[in-house]
Amino acid sequence: FKIFTLNSNRALASEMVKMLGCELGKCSVSRFSDGEIQINIEESVRGSEVYVIQSTSQPGSEHIMELLIMIDALKRASARFINVVMPYFGYARQDRKVRSREPITAKLIANLLERAGADRVITMDLHAPQIQGFFDIPVDQLIGVPILSQYFENKRLKDIVVVAPDNGGVVRARKMASHLHAPIAFVDKRRPEPNVAEIMNIVGNIEGKNAIIIDDLIDTAGTLTLAANALVEKGAKAVYACCTHPILSGPAIQRIQSSVIEELVVTNTIQLPEEKMINKITCLSVAPLLVEAI
Amino acid sequence: FKIFTLNSNRALASEMVKMLGCELGKCSVSRFSDGEIQINIEESVRGSEVYVIQSTSQPGSEHIMELLIMIDALKRASARFINVVMPYFGYARQDRKVRSREPITAKLIANLLERAGADRVITMDLHAPQIQGFFDIPVDQLIGVPILSQYFENKRLKDIVVVAPDNGGVVRARKMASHLHAPIAFVDKRRPEPNVAEIMNIVGNIEGKNAIIIDDLIDTAGTLTLAANALVEKGAKAVYACCTHPILSGPAIQRIQSSVIEELVVTNTIQLPEEKMINKITCLSVAPLLVEAI
Ligand SMILES: Nc1ncnc2c1ncn2[C@@H]1O[C@H](COP(=O)(O)O)[C@@H](O)[C@H]1O
Ligand SMILES: Nc1ncnc2c1ncn2[C@@H]1O[C@H](COP(=O)(O)O)[C@@H](O)[C@H]1O
Repeated sequence: FKIFTLNSNRALASEMVKMLGCELGKCSVSRFSDGEIQINIEESVRGSEVYVIQSTSQPGSEHIMELLIMIDALKRASARFINVVMPYFGYARQDRKVRSREPITAKLIANLLERAGADRVITMDLHAPQIQGFFDIPVDQLIGVPILSQYFENKRLKDIVVVAPDNGGVVRARKMASHLHAPIAFVDKRRPEPNVAEIMNIVGNIEGKNAIIIDDLIDTAGTLTLAANALVEKGAKAVYACCTHPILSGPAIQRIQSSVIEELVVTNTIQLPEEKMINKITCLSVAPLLVEAI
Repeated sequence: FKIFTLNSNRALASEMVKMLGCELGKCSVSRFSDGEIQINIEESVRGSEVYVIQSTSQPGSEHIMELLIMIDALKRASARFINVVMPYFGYARQDRKVRSREPITAKLIANLLERAGADRVITMDLHAPQIQGFFDIPVDQLIGVPILSQYFENKRLKDIVVVAPDNGGVVRARKMASHLHAPIAFVDKRRPEPNVAEIMNIVGNIEGKNAIIIDDLIDTAGTLTLAANALVEKGAKAVYACCTHPILSGPAIQRIQSSVIEELVVTNTIQLPEEKMINKITCLSVAPLLVEAI
């Protein structure tokens, strides 16, 4: 098989081929003068099984188009089977109509990938597991909980409680709690009346404990930092946080920096730019996990 | 019917609805904090015939994704028939494999539009008319030659010769020449040996004449300004230029500004930013043409 990478996760791809003891497929992904995407696959793929590594992280439209154009080029070059490795599947939060006349962009992306010619998708921690059903081709969903749990185990933290930052995250928190043989709690947000501030209630015993908040993704870090404050107020000894996908857009870094959170542990499904790699953030690699799935 | 516009051509869309005596469909097209596209259609489209106005000009990936997501939202909101009005169809130059293992992105875009749910496409001056055949849905291709010709007729230029800047443009030049009752000429580029500069030969009589170079699109303006120089050298009295799609990327504006070209006439299939609206450039509106096709 051959492994190609596009522009979203070059560091992860390099790590993967090093572990596999092979080379990256030769391919240039650049731009024409007017900004249109230019892809040149520089070695034969005829009859080959290929893996294309690309998260649809930001800039999302560019990364999605690179991926679709690459699949088109591989298909026309007679690749036998095209595996799309998307450590982070963007638009996963647009997976249902919350209001009338909204798009379901996650489903659209699934359709576009299939139409372009993808044969299989490998991804991690979908925002909702139902997204697997948006595809008619095989989808392998890997999960970040074991890697994140291992990290906290190695830290030998005592008196842990795993916390879901909202009601939806309880299943994920349960998984991590099992790994760590720890109890769970969750933050129950409630708006008593319209236009009145939300009340953050903690369900579960967190007093004097090391709380670890877990989520699939952290975007603006608003929910996370509010939850962390609530935990400290209600008597937690220290608050840690972790997630698989560090989107960290807008005020996220600033909020995390000035929050009560001791440490935020993330993975490299989304490649963080230098300026977001603040001291409080620890980044774990999903390369071993992805290599196993290949 | 209802007319919606996305972000590529808001000025053109406003002009069109004014001519039609209706209002633009209410719809917000914005971005989430992480940059993902957020579309909210704010009025019912159930059972309606809708027109969506969007060129896939730069930033191309953003404009393509906006369009695909909008089509998805309209489809799910039970629109009866979705007409996509793409005054400029991007990626049209990637319409064949010139080298091995290239994508055919123009075909990919056609497939994606259909997969998203487009029912019909209205576009202008495709780089190659064959691109119509990339779609299985109806495609109406309008042409810019009449508008451009009319402008030069109104100028009452005498002794005109219409010039194709390369061999591929002769058919288009012929059309304009017929409109203007003028003779044609073309620039025949030839590289005598590899790594030797191209020779620009003018085929046709241009001496003492007002030459009008016509092309479908002008991108970096390299070919155009070289052709203009060759025309002046070979005795043309003055050189005008025109095209339907003013891409004008990279050094284009600078090159045109400092060239021998008297005036460049373009249309608004691509919305030019302020800073590209230099004095030498005249922009004609395709709104009347598009309104007629609706
Ligand atoms: N990129 C995004 N950033 C923020 N919110 C989003 C994004 N995409 C979708 N949403 C919204 O997030 C909500 C769903 O998130 P959740 O309840 O966590 O599944 C819906 O109201 C979506 O419209
Ligand atoms: N956006 C673009 N800018 C410049 N060249 C392009 C672009 N897209 C495709 N091409 C190349 O232009 C050539 C085709 O142009 P043409 O001969 O005018 O049809 C092919 O070699 C394409 O690879």
